[in-house]
Amino acid sequence: MSHSPLILQLIEALRCLPGVGNKSAQRMAYYLLERDRPGALALSRALQETVEKVGHCKSCMILTEQEICHICSDAKRDSNSICVVENPGDVYAIEQSGSYRGKYFVLMGHISPLDGIGPDELNLPTLFKRAENELLTEVILATNTTVEGEATAYYIIDQLKPLNIKVTRIAHGVPLGGELEYVDGSTLGHALAGRKEV
Amino acid sequence: MSHSPLILQLIEALRCLPGVGNKSAQRMAYYLLERDRPGALALSRALQETVEKVGHCKSCMILTEQEICHICSDAKRDSNSICVVENPGDVYAIEQSGSYRGKYFVLMGHISPLDGIGPDELNLPTLFKRAENELLTEVILATNTTVEGEATAYYIIDQLKPLNIKVTRIAHGVPLGGELEYVDGSTLGHALAGRKEV
Repeated sequence: MSHSPLILQLIEALRCLPGVGNKSAQRMAYYLLERDRPGALALSRALQETVEKVGHCKSCMILTEQEICHICSDAKRDSNSICVVENPGDVYAIEQSGSYRGKYFVLMGHISPLDGIGPDELNLPTLFKRAENELLTEVILATNTTVEGEATAYYIIDQLKPLNIKVTRIAHGVPLGGELEYVDGSTLGHALAGRKEV
Repeated sequence: MSHSPLILQLIEALRCLPGVGNKSAQRMAYYLLERDRPGALALSRALQETVEKVGHCKSCMILTEQEICHICSDAKRDSNSICVVENPGDVYAIEQSGSYRGKYFVLMGHISPLDGIGPDELNLPTLFKRAENELLTEVILATNTTVEGEATAYYIIDQLKPLNIKVTRIAHGVPLGGELEYVDGSTLGHALAGRKEV
């Protein structure tokens, strides 16, 4: 015996969630049906509504249900500074740190020739247009510290050179609270190469 | 800044899933919106459809979209034996073991006076009616090995005594592949008390 067809379908559907395998999906399906049917219905509605209404901000590409997101339309924020990230989730991570008051730009990925993703598949043309037309004093590159993230950063640096805008890259090194013993070699290499006089 | 209102609503809704906290819910929400919108819609539909259509089998109470589940209506299964479990998920676990070919009965919980759950709050009257009216040769008690599960088992044993049906309890002991060193004391106690001559 397996599950009833509808329950099986729900288990399959739950597996689209990241980090959810067959066992967790089963547990979730039975939990929802046995103990939290209102929660399941609320989740169903929330999923449908967000997929229908949430799109990308026309200016910075973060996920929002408005045409222009609340960060881009916030007059109190420094509009001379743009922080470039790979994914909408990265914006939230930086906002949580509370240490940046400028605007953002989301590339929606990184340059990855092996996957057929070149500069044109990302939102790079929009970024360069903004760099030309807006009075920017700084572009901060906060792409990931992977090979692709670095390559994307260097490509942007190259393209922005003629515009004479200050371009910076976020610092790489040992994370706060991290024990040296457990930090990987290339991070330590970066931390040493980027050492500062105190 | 926090998330946009709709995304926040989705994150809240995802937290109804067991084992999903705030961080995982955020990750799931962004993952679905950035990379798997068809999956999100399929999940939305599956949730709604299962909540609407899946109910309990009239005979054994397991979760099914039919009136009588496919186990109860399977003529090839031994209908003289009933295995009593606490939750619908338990049925699936036993079926997966492939070592039982009789029918089931789901109590939908256990006796727990502290939570106000007495025999009448469970499906016990239905079970006793089946025991009286069907030609049963054995009732197997597979409630959990918790205090409440044991109490429920003993209550059922008491009630079935006048009917002269063979009532059995599944064996408790050291799990297969388990190392003695890591098995808790009360399990070891059960394993010793239930030892068999070889």
